Amino acid sequence: MKILLSQINPFIGDIEGNSKKILDNINNAKKLGADLIIFPEMSLIGYPPLDLLEKKWLIDKNIKFANEIVSQTKGIGVIFGYVDKNPGKAGKKLFNAAIFAHNGKIIRKYYKQLLPTYDVFDERRYFEPGNKSCIFKFKGQTIALTICEDVWNDKDFWKERIYEKDPLEEMAQFNPDFIINISASPFTIDKTKIKEEMFKTIVKKYKIPFISVNQVGGNDSLIFDGRSIAFDKNARIIARASDFKEDNVLVDIEKGKGDIHPISKSKIESVYNALLLGIRDYVTKCGFKKVVVGLSGGIDSSLTAVLAVNSLGSENVLGVSMPSEYTSKSSIDDAKQLAQNLKIKFEIIPITPTFHTLKEELQNLFKGLKENITEENLQARIRSNILMAISNKFGYLVLSTGNKSELATGYCTLYGDMSGGLAVISDVPKTMVYELANYINNVTRALARKNLRQPCHVTSRKIIPINVIKKAPTAELKPNQKDSDTLPEYEILDPILKAYIEDQKGIDEIVKMGFEKNLVKKVINMVDKSEYKRQQAAPTLKVTSKAFGFGRRMPIAYKINY
Amino acid sequence: MKILLSQINPFIGDIEGNSKKILDNINNAKKLGADLIIFPEMSLIGYPPLDLLEKKWLIDKNIKFANEIVSQTKGIGVIFGYVDKNPGKAGKKLFNAAIFAHNGKIIRKYYKQLLPTYDVFDERRYFEPGNKSCIFKFKGQTIALTICEDVWNDKDFWKERIYEKDPLEEMAQFNPDFIINISASPFTIDKTKIKEEMFKTIVKKYKIPFISVNQVGGNDSLIFDGRSIAFDKNARIIARASDFKEDNVLVDIEKGKGDIHPISKSKIESVYNALLLGIRDYVTKCGFKKVVVGLSGGIDSSLTAVLAVNSLGSENVLGVSMPSEYTSKSSIDDAKQLAQNLKIKFEIIPITPTFHTLKEELQNLFKGLKENITEENLQARIRSNILMAISNKFGYLVLSTGNKSELATGYCTLYGDMSGGLAVISDVPKTMVYELANYINNVTRALARKNLRQPCHVTSRKIIPINVIKKAPTAELKPNQKDSDTLPEYEILDPILKAYIEDQKGIDEIVKMGFEKNLVKKVINMVDKSEYKRQQAAPTLKVTSKAFGFGRRMPIAYKINY
Repeated sequence: MKILLSQINPFIGDIEGNSKKILDNINNAKKLGADLIIFPEMSLIGYPPLDLLEKKWLIDKNIKFANEIVSQTKGIGVIFGYVDKNPGKAGKKLFNAAIFAHNGKIIRKYYKQLLPTYDVFDERRYFEPGNKSCIFKFKGQTIALTICEDVWNDKDFWKERIYEKDPLEEMAQFNPDFIINISASPFTIDKTKIKEEMFKTIVKKYKIPFISVNQVGGNDSLIFDGRSIAFDKNARIIARASDFKEDNVLVDIEKGKGDIHPISKSKIESVYNALLLGIRDYVTKCGFKKVVVGLSGGIDSSLTAVLAVNSLGSENVLGVSMPSEYTSKSSIDDAKQLAQNLKIKFEIIPITPTFHTLKEELQNLFKGLKENITEENLQARIRSNILMAISNKFGYLVLSTGNKSELATGYCTLYGDMSGGLAVISDVPKTMVYELANYINNVTRALARKNLRQPCHVTSRKIIPINVIKKAPTAELKPNQKDSDTLPEYEILDPILKAYIEDQKGIDEIVKMGFEKNLVKKVINMVDKSEYKRQQAAPTLKVTSKAFGFGRRMPIAYKINY
Repeated sequence: MKILLSQINPFIGDIEGNSKKILDNINNAKKLGADLIIFPEMSLIGYPPLDLLEKKWLIDKNIKFANEIVSQTKGIGVIFGYVDKNPGKAGKKLFNAAIFAHNGKIIRKYYKQLLPTYDVFDERRYFEPGNKSCIFKFKGQTIALTICEDVWNDKDFWKERIYEKDPLEEMAQFNPDFIINISASPFTIDKTKIKEEMFKTIVKKYKIPFISVNQVGGNDSLIFDGRSIAFDKNARIIARASDFKEDNVLVDIEKGKGDIHPISKSKIESVYNALLLGIRDYVTKCGFKKVVVGLSGGIDSSLTAVLAVNSLGSENVLGVSMPSEYTSKSSIDDAKQLAQNLKIKFEIIPITPTFHTLKEELQNLFKGLKENITEENLQARIRSNILMAISNKFGYLVLSTGNKSELATGYCTLYGDMSGGLAVISDVPKTMVYELANYINNVTRALARKNLRQPCHVTSRKIIPINVIKKAPTAELKPNQKDSDTLPEYEILDPILKAYIEDQKGIDEIVKMGFEKNLVKKVINMVDKSEYKRQQAAPTLKVTSKAFGFGRRMPIAYKINY
């Protein structure tokens, strides 16, 4: 049986557009002589639609278009995800559903049984769980159909299981010839490997070939990596789609042969590719074409600008330097050099006159009081005002440039450097910011050496000036300021933050990792106290297992005695 | 049996503090000769603790303190809510639990069976549902114990039911002498009435006396109204605690007699009291004492200032007028008059010099382009910078002053007037802003006539100057600007917004209500397009059935074809 894994990038809510994309791919599959084409979970409405699911008319429309797709399945089997209504008198009104259609008819419907409700997932908010396996015959083969989380509860793979039930185990008892899993499983840096290991564990256990078709694309904070994959019954990869782009791969499941397309070669490359896709989809799906980035000459804004250029093209990025009296000449030079390397438009708008005018306005009220963090924040907020004015006047989206270590500790100014439509690297810890910067500089050099097409319109050997990477991090909001005046060194800070935020460890556990107790307490206190800032932060692009934002829901007014 | 309904205001996460409060009330109950004291749902940790529940050490601590409370129950029955661990190998790790303890021993544990997962509720994220009824004997009486949502699924009361199961129906079959429901059920303007009707329906149906003990207090966006209540078997109210404050009421369930404390007399009074509590708890639980409010002379900021003063005291509120060249003299006069009426400190800090300096800085970049909304936003953002500078310098919390109609339509400036630690009235539609303003002016007059103690330190007959209420709403960000240049009249806008946001109606349904189709489309488009602003908004105080923020989860990058 020839099967096409159709890894599409749906637009949330755009049922007409997504349906057209599905139909186009069905036609393509017919031309390729495929017997069966498989689309991702909820591909008709896009994942996650969140509370759009509460619009009844939109659900009706999705069902109407699902039926339209069914009518276009002459001569080919089609599996796709959509949302179905629960006709029951009680329970949630919807199912996270899939259809297998053939020759214009619905052959089987399936309702997802395990509904993830943790981190960024809220499926119990909308869906009633299904309670029936889905096994059907097609062209002489017995096929089991599952949706995403349904296969994430194997008792041999997981030490702790969230669900009592294992739908996969139930379906395996029917001895299907192969298992299909359609998913909308977002990327995180460590998940790719875990997921592949889990798939292999399942396949080896049941000795049944396995096909996963995953959504691709950026939807607000979430980046779906695609990377659809097929294994033979020995857990050998027999087909694989690319990551971070739409792709179709053919697999012949009986012959155990299929296309294998290239994927990211390292973790850091996958983060890089994820961020490019996240930027591109957020900017364009929000209806923007161009972006503006404040360039301080520091590594965070430099990295953000490179990512923006490699994602959107240099013609769509404006860099703005906004020096104050505390900005060193080398910072302006570094920003300018970066802009030249990236061939982007570059403006310098000093904030000193505005800063002085504002201080004069406030001098009566602040009489007799020393300058402090207030005046630092004033500067950051003037810069925000300038960037937002550019956004308003020209219709550019502001990309904010803060990293995760800053956002975690509150080392950032609300309505200041936190301002923007998208916080590109605010789930990237500072130490990973350096990794990405070095990755970018090395890849560019390698490409230059090999004389290959370059990922951005860059001629210099190092895109990010060495000085940007080498110098000590500073906010330059007062004389001789260094990040290390306020924060521990990032090599120490970042593992503490990861332990606390991603791994949910308590103080004692973190101390046991080898950190000084008072330092751990200080860091945790900084994180807890700055929750109010994060709740007003721009959407971030999630790349770690626990990003700030939607997937980490903390009260602001609370008190914990450690 | 003498029962004390102990309606406490727990502090989220503060297990030591909440436990002390519980123990103090137990001692008080003993002195009053009560046989049984009942505390709200999850009173030991406070509701909702959100992802604090993922801290294992905190759960352990809550269990340790629960046992400590149990040890203090000599001579009295105690029912309180806490969080228990699920010892099962699969499923969510926690239960939303209650203990009935007596004479130092746990007599019964109960696990909540219906877990609300909609709007602001996320209980399926954390908890495994219980599956056992809780019926026990105490002092010769058979008692049924339920937790909040457990009683919200009666098939005769609700047309649509979210759950298959009805724990109350199951427990009623055991013929208990009375039913206890402990809850943490947040206030909304229409819920009070529905809840009381639902309770009465249940009581009449089963002919069993019913006691509800509800949490009180503000926790971030949510305001819990308390209003604990007891009914005899004929659904007559035999005891009731006050709303919006901590309270204890005694009830003798066999005699059908108890204390009845005063509650808000009207819907608008309940919203007023909710907002006062919401402000007070947010400000103080966040560790602040004083607040600063920008006073434009308009009704929104005037109302916010009055609420702040009546909540925190005039000595804790600073009003700041920040006039520009477009601010009329009467706006400054009205702001000044209000500040005088409220006896608050008042500052005038003009923004014109800063506005002009910023415009000069941008004039090269903006050469040849007309002034537009960009320059309007510049002003709003300068004002935000000033208020935040005052916040940073003096440690005052900024209260933002936008109403729900503005936030819904995006008629507000991100990082401008949207800035603040708490958005006091951003769940209050503009038409309700007027209702509240009139309520305040009338109540104050009535109190003055009766020569009673006044709710704030006010001497004038009308706290809010009549001119503030009478004049046409304007943002005063350009010459002769009126809200009605951009928005429909609020009397038309607000019902459309309610239909769309609270009642989830589609365009056709709203048009059927009697509104013009293009207008409805225009309004819905404004709402949809401004989602990006709301996701960076300050926490609001929820008073309607659907507030922006945590309980309304919308994607930013999406496309719906109406």
